[in-house]
Amino acid sequence: MIDVTRKYDFSASHRLHCAAFTEAENNEVFGKCNNPFGHGHNYELFVTAHGPVDPRSGQAVDAAVLDRLVSKFVLDAYRHKNMNLDIPEFAATVPTTENVVNAIAQRLKEHWAEAFPSGVPSLRKILIRETDRNIFELIL
Amino acid sequence: MIDVTRKYDFSASHRLHCAAFTEAENNEVFGKCNNPFGHGHNYELFVTAHGPVDPRSGQAVDAAVLDRLVSKFVLDAYRHKNMNLDIPEFAATVPTTENVVNAIAQRLKEHWAEAFPSGVPSLRKILIRETDRNIFELIL
Amino acid sequence: MIDVTRKYDFSASHRLHCAAFTEAENNEVFGKCNNPFGHGHNYELFVTAHGPVDPRSGQAVDAAVLDRLVSKFVLDAYRHKNMNLDIPEFAATVPTTENVVNAIAQRLKEHWAEAFPSGVPSLRKILIRETDRNIFELIL
Amino acid sequence: MIDVTRKYDFSASHRLHCAAFTEAENNEVFGKCNNPFGHGHNYELFVTAHGPVDPRSGQAVDAAVLDRLVSKFVLDAYRHKNMNLDIPEFAATVPTTENVVNAIAQRLKEHWAEAFPSGVPSLRKILIRETDRNIFELIL
Amino acid sequence: MIDVTRKYDFSASHRLHCAAFTEAENNEVFGKCNNPFGHGHNYELFVTAHGPVDPRSGQAVDAAVLDRLVSKFVLDAYRHKNMNLDIPEFAATVPTTENVVNAIAQRLKEHWAEAFPSGVPSLRKILIRETDRNIFELIL
Amino acid sequence: MIDVTRKYDFSASHRLHCAAFTEAENNEVFGKCNNPFGHGHNYELFVTAHGPVDPRSGQAVDAAVLDRLVSKFVLDAYRHKNMNLDIPEFAATVPTTENVVNAIAQRLKEHWAEAFPSGVPSLRKILIRETDRNIFELIL
Repeated sequence: MIDVTRKYDFSASHRLHCAAFTEAENNEVFGKCNNPFGHGHNYELFVTAHGPVDPRSGQAVDAAVLDRLVSKFVLDAYRHKNMNLDIPEFAATVPTTENVVNAIAQRLKEHWAEAFPSGVPSLRKILIRETDRNIFELIL
Repeated sequence: MIDVTRKYDFSASHRLHCAAFTEAENNEVFGKCNNPFGHGHNYELFVTAHGPVDPRSGQAVDAAVLDRLVSKFVLDAYRHKNMNLDIPEFAATVPTTENVVNAIAQRLKEHWAEAFPSGVPSLRKILIRETDRNIFELIL
Repeated sequence: MIDVTRKYDFSASHRLHCAAFTEAENNEVFGKCNNPFGHGHNYELFVTAHGPVDPRSGQAVDAAVLDRLVSKFVLDAYRHKNMNLDIPEFAATVPTTENVVNAIAQRLKEHWAEAFPSGVPSLRKILIRETDRNIFELIL
Repeated sequence: MIDVTRKYDFSASHRLHCAAFTEAENNEVFGKCNNPFGHGHNYELFVTAHGPVDPRSGQAVDAAVLDRLVSKFVLDAYRHKNMNLDIPEFAATVPTTENVVNAIAQRLKEHWAEAFPSGVPSLRKILIRETDRNIFELIL
Repeated sequence: MIDVTRKYDFSASHRLHCAAFTEAENNEVFGKCNNPFGHGHNYELFVTAHGPVDPRSGQAVDAAVLDRLVSKFVLDAYRHKNMNLDIPEFAATVPTTENVVNAIAQRLKEHWAEAFPSGVPSLRKILIRETDRNIFELIL
Repeated sequence: MIDVTRKYDFSASHRLHCAAFTEAENNEVFGKCNNPFGHGHNYELFVTAHGPVDPRSGQAVDAAVLDRLVSKFVLDAYRHKNMNLDIPEFAATVPTTENVVNAIAQRLKEHWAEAFPSGVPSLRKILIRETDRNIFELIL
């Protein structure tokens, strides 16, 4: 059993703002990230799948299948987008990278069985590096 | 004579859109970067100064002076901002990274003599890495 | 439940030397790192906290709180310092990076409850990259 | 108990081809990696050992011992080699990175007790970064 | 006038061998890189163009045009290939990275005017990073 | 004519202190880097040579010759050392990275003709990255 990780990236913008907070609370919790017009990042997305190595192909994951899954359901939605305004999951939820990790995990889980109908590999981890100094990781 | 480069970074968003272009032209020239709500990047900014090494301090650049200059006139304006809406230089100019390099060079040149009244070091180069794959460089 | 990692860095020096060893043993165990006057590194410190995502703020960790904790109890003590001579934990203990990881974990554990009185997030991992080729990791 | 990781690298070439597949299957599974004359990579190899910190030396792993083990049984065999033609494990097995991770783990496990006769540290993880976008990891 | 650099990459293999050398000379000059079956690298290719910023588009280089040029005439030929056997320029020339830089520069110069018929931007620099420790640069 | 750059690294410590300055001046100029017991860095050293490509070997620089030169006259002196106390050039000169670049350039120039008696390649550039944020470059 081996873990295979593929790295993807997308550039997007977001504004950290919670409608349920007062202006003072938004300032205190989100600081400069509460700027009304938003800001952005180069997000690095690492998707890890876990499974046995096929004895003939020598592969644990069909990378082309994983790439199509991630492109269709994640990258096409996030690349060059404003998360607050362009992505339905963030219509009423603040697009912190914690929430982005969870939203991307949800999208991948929903479509995983279509991509890998045999049940292997399994989806194991979603990790996003928002900046060089901020890393968010969800182990499934 | 030695070149000293300090690296800074800022996260910002922008939309590539030219009011003088038709919608079709904007799509053709800027592609997905023309998305109405914008997107963003982690910009890495490298500022290079050039000068002689002071025989006593062993330094060609007072890094604290350079940092204050860049923080006050560049980073405070760009960090966590939407370039199109928050930065006056881009009110009527598209914030491509070519134009951002030129705008930052202009800000530094205007205030360089206040920071380094002796005339040394000189400002030599502004380089921005917009993503891992896009680098823009202005040699002065 | 999500893992959030923040990266910090500090430049410090150390000498690997054990008073209980003979000179020959020190040479054999520590090699060039036993140089009497020491040497140094740019240490990269990754602190990982683990917890649930707050439904309102969308955050699992208040980064500003974690930064203040790490700055006050770790970075202020280690930055631009000689570990053997400036840091009390290494008065009689060799400052190998294994011991530095443990000493930093101890400092963070002692003050964690002051910073995060609710008990969440928890401190999960301390990782130090001493050089590009040496990584030390403590899972709590 | 601490995890210590050392990073090594080697440049090698391989051809992804399975003799049991038809030409069409090889093309479908391996794509351009099935090119008859092969291609290559700069492989980054991370070996993680796990053990207690020695109270006198302050070390969990004798890095010189680990380096000799990895050099003798892995790097000397893989560096500047064609995996299909130069490495016996791949005479009849396709040298995907999944299989390379397993083959290297096998070599290290066979010789681990010679290098570390006390039983500590233990071999914990083999990770290979084949390219910036492909990471393979075996937890032992 | 600004310099714009785009980064590309390709994985390829090569054997450093000169037919005009004796076996001993090949061993002395090329060392382990003379291995009969070759080895490989992840090559990072940086192409720098130089030109004025268009006042309307804010761009000095049409990145899509440069990408098509590099893909068609360089990447399609080099990706996942054995340079000695798959690339005509190396039928009788040793594929050192010095020669690869020159061969790629030649390909780009031949087709530059088709891609940029206005004469701007100009091709300014070809840089290849063969490994983390080996960089080759041709200024045109 | 091509530029070939080889990257080397060394870990060393230094104290920034000028005997001709008062204590207050040392604090003002060097800040925390004036700490009496010093601190250290992982220095990355890039040496660039410039010359024609040999038509038979396809090389502009004999990397093995350059490596021996740099190892013997630079790395052996700097690795795991305290610059102020272990390196003669800094007995009375402050080991800022500006001065380190100049001292290393001086060592390489003194011994260059022994290593490359034909006069090619020439020594073109010495660049040191002291930290991720500080780069010093001398063009010869």
